[in-house]
Amino acid sequence: MSHAYEFARPALTVDIVVFGFDSEYGEEDLKVMLIQRDLAPYEGGWALPGGFVRVEETLDDAARRELAEETGLKDIYLEQLYTFGAVERDPRERVVTVAYYALVNLEGHDIQANTDARNAAWFPVSDLPELAFDHQEILDVAHERLRGKVRYQPIGFELLPDRFTLRQLQHLYEVILDRELDKRNFRKKVLAMEIVKETKEIEKDVAHRAARLYHFDKRTYDRLTKQGFNFEI
Amino acid sequence: MSHAYEFARPALTVDIVVFGFDSEYGEEDLKVMLIQRDLAPYEGGWALPGGFVRVEETLDDAARRELAEETGLKDIYLEQLYTFGAVERDPRERVVTVAYYALVNLEGHDIQANTDARNAAWFPVSDLPELAFDHQEILDVAHERLRGKVRYQPIGFELLPDRFTLRQLQHLYEVILDRELDKRNFRKKVLAMEIVKETKEIEKDVAHRAARLYHFDKRTYDRLTKQGFNFEI
Repeated sequence: MSHAYEFARPALTVDIVVFGFDSEYGEEDLKVMLIQRDLAPYEGGWALPGGFVRVEETLDDAARRELAEETGLKDIYLEQLYTFGAVERDPRERVVTVAYYALVNLEGHDIQANTDARNAAWFPVSDLPELAFDHQEILDVAHERLRGKVRYQPIGFELLPDRFTLRQLQHLYEVILDRELDKRNFRKKVLAMEIVKETKEIEKDVAHRAARLYHFDKRTYDRLTKQGFNFEI
Repeated sequence: MSHAYEFARPALTVDIVVFGFDSEYGEEDLKVMLIQRDLAPYEGGWALPGGFVRVEETLDDAARRELAEETGLKDIYLEQLYTFGAVERDPRERVVTVAYYALVNLEGHDIQANTDARNAAWFPVSDLPELAFDHQEILDVAHERLRGKVRYQPIGFELLPDRFTLRQLQHLYEVILDRELDKRNFRKKVLAMEIVKETKEIEKDVAHRAARLYHFDKRTYDRLTKQGFNFEI
């Protein structure tokens, strides 16, 4: 930090991996939101939402601003992921990007394509188009982080509606972890965690037998989010 | 990522929190390496080693270069921690810093004060001088990360010599976690992990009764580092 302010400096951006989970309409894939670029390089290609960090805003503020501008998403769970600085990751010039990841329950969130972007859309993580820049790598790191975190923080719960069935919760974990889980074992472990509490309600308007709805115990949730836990599934 | 290259851009630095553990001479505190600044701001104050990212180098390379230049430390375990971007964190201008943390076994590592820095020295984490910039906050986040990581990755082992006693290993964990651990329980859990293997050697030249030396099973270590584990202590 001594005397190098006169050096040429890399440009600084933020990029956001927004994961979405839709438990409502049978579309239970883990999704990610992409923006179709309207400018070169990669014109017409798909990319993570993001943009340049302004001199007067924090990194978190830049991520929230870009997300709102490009997708209309506001007030969502956002966490810094990792900073990517490969020298040739942007063909135009040296650009370092601070990546974030966000979790969204798709119920009740609309995406509005902004003037900045030709198009914004959700894609299943398992079936993505080719991504611009190193965005596939960033997405892979975010997915890996999500898989790791659900094992020691109750983070995945952000992706469910307020009231949910244990089937929905199990499916969420299966989608994030990308493997099938044993139903009885899963339920036993989840309920032992004391985050998930039974409600008096059951599902409405479903073709199958209506299942019990559960909700989170917010206090236990906050405590475990802070101190971490072991959820071996 | 569209059309903002003409904007003013923050400066970009790296800063490195180097943790050191000396199990050899009874000095078993967790230490951190600081550099005494020889330029304003905070002239004469203590700070983390670090400096500006050059346009032609990766972030990891910048961290390794600054560490070598300012401290002489090379070939050590280094991991990206978090990127700090508070708007006023540097009084001169907007500077965003990508923080790293490193783990060093102090046995066999000398620090050489470089021309860049008036002085480089190890300080006990529990007894630090006032730090320049937001470096205390960065150090706190690094310490918290280290405490978290030793619970699900065998990361702390980087801080021990090749051959070590279970007493040294327990003390390392006590120092990182900042609490006393039950000896019998700790040994049972460590040996159950199958990372730590008994050798045929015992301590030499010690005043107390010589204890058995252990070493790591490198293969188990690499596998567990990759997949993570739960080490509830």
